[in-house]
Amino acid sequence: MADKNKLQRKTGIILALDVTDEASALEITAAVADLVDAVKIGYPLVLGTGLSIVSKLSKYAPVIADFKVADIPNTDHLICEHVFKAGCAAVIVQGFTGPDSLSECVKTATAFDGKVFVVSEMSHPGGSYFFTDEISKEIAGLSRKYGAFGIVAPATRPERVKELRAVIGDDLKIISPGVGAQGGSAADTIKAGADWVIVGRSIYNAENPRDEAMKVKVEIEKLI
Amino acid sequence: MADKNKLQRKTGIILALDVTDEASALEITAAVADLVDAVKIGYPLVLGTGLSIVSKLSKYAPVIADFKVADIPNTDHLICEHVFKAGCAAVIVQGFTGPDSLSECVKTATAFDGKVFVVSEMSHPGGSYFFTDEISKEIAGLSRKYGAFGIVAPATRPERVKELRAVIGDDLKIISPGVGAQGGSAADTIKAGADWVIVGRSIYNAENPRDEAMKVKVEIEKLI
Repeated sequence: MADKNKLQRKTGIILALDVTDEASALEITAAVADLVDAVKIGYPLVLGTGLSIVSKLSKYAPVIADFKVADIPNTDHLICEHVFKAGCAAVIVQGFTGPDSLSECVKTATAFDGKVFVVSEMSHPGGSYFFTDEISKEIAGLSRKYGAFGIVAPATRPERVKELRAVIGDDLKIISPGVGAQGGSAADTIKAGADWVIVGRSIYNAENPRDEAMKVKVEIEKLI
Repeated sequence: MADKNKLQRKTGIILALDVTDEASALEITAAVADLVDAVKIGYPLVLGTGLSIVSKLSKYAPVIADFKVADIPNTDHLICEHVFKAGCAAVIVQGFTGPDSLSECVKTATAFDGKVFVVSEMSHPGGSYFFTDEISKEIAGLSRKYGAFGIVAPATRPERVKELRAVIGDDLKIISPGVGAQGGSAADTIKAGADWVIVGRSIYNAENPRDEAMKVKVEIEKLI
């Protein structure tokens, strides 16, 4: 079983495993496991394979369930229970659903010694339509208040990572999607205050995923 | 296979099937199928049983996947593909992720002759923390603009159902959770402008679910 404490490191890579079949998911994870601190999976994979894939992936690396949990507290609780019973190290939830939903997710995660990351701002173009600067900061503040482990902030906008870091101080971690194929730079994102960069396509679509992961790792380690 | 056109009716009941085991889900649905226009299932059930439960439930009633889809457009697309390939009649998505996420969900649903309901306002206490009146109305307006089939508005606050009906006119349907155990009244919610009331616990936890569903149906039919 992978060491869940990997998620205590200061900086590193999280692999966004946005493939949809189990064989590829396991093969890519095995190839890069020692270069990444966690793998992040979402519903497109889990709806095809079932949550049983978590225990298989966990042999290589801690698994983060990127389920963008966005429901009423009781349903959030039941979803998080599934996540942690399946063996995930952490879950990603939306903060937009309010303080009671957020605190219920943290409470459930804590009961399983698991962690919660809260989406403070999304990386796609329409993501800022409702996630205004003010709302993003408010979500980051609530994440700190209710004991989340970290927040999610976009590598595609490092200036926003910096602003959100100012809101949460050093109490929470920041994980940042959008590095690589989406245009974000690993070095710039870490410099802006992220603890982990989340890299997907540029690793899992590479002819040699391990070489690509190594490149990002070298880029990050130059900064430490 | 259940007639998906049931979802064209003017008013009726949607059963919120928030149980977590397959046997209960099928038993309750079979008992009330002719009294409800659809059953709504969520991740707590699906993460346990797999999406294969959809085809089993669809023998009795159209199935709505209440997944509160809340991701970037490409992930939303992949989730909705799973939903409709599994045989669901409709999916419930969040609207706060912005216009591009919303329109991608509608596009994917349309390709499968499926329907999208958009959460305009949530029913739990913290739901109004970020879903202000202004934001709820904006989400309702975008739902209309991008061709959603309907919106989700809380039966626990019928005055909000009325206000959101004014935003969407008669173009979109309204489904309203919170009737029964959560305190909402079926009659008041329909009078405020909802097309379907979503009833969960008061039916599926009843000693005789069919009798409970019948009571709600009679209450609604008095109004038509």
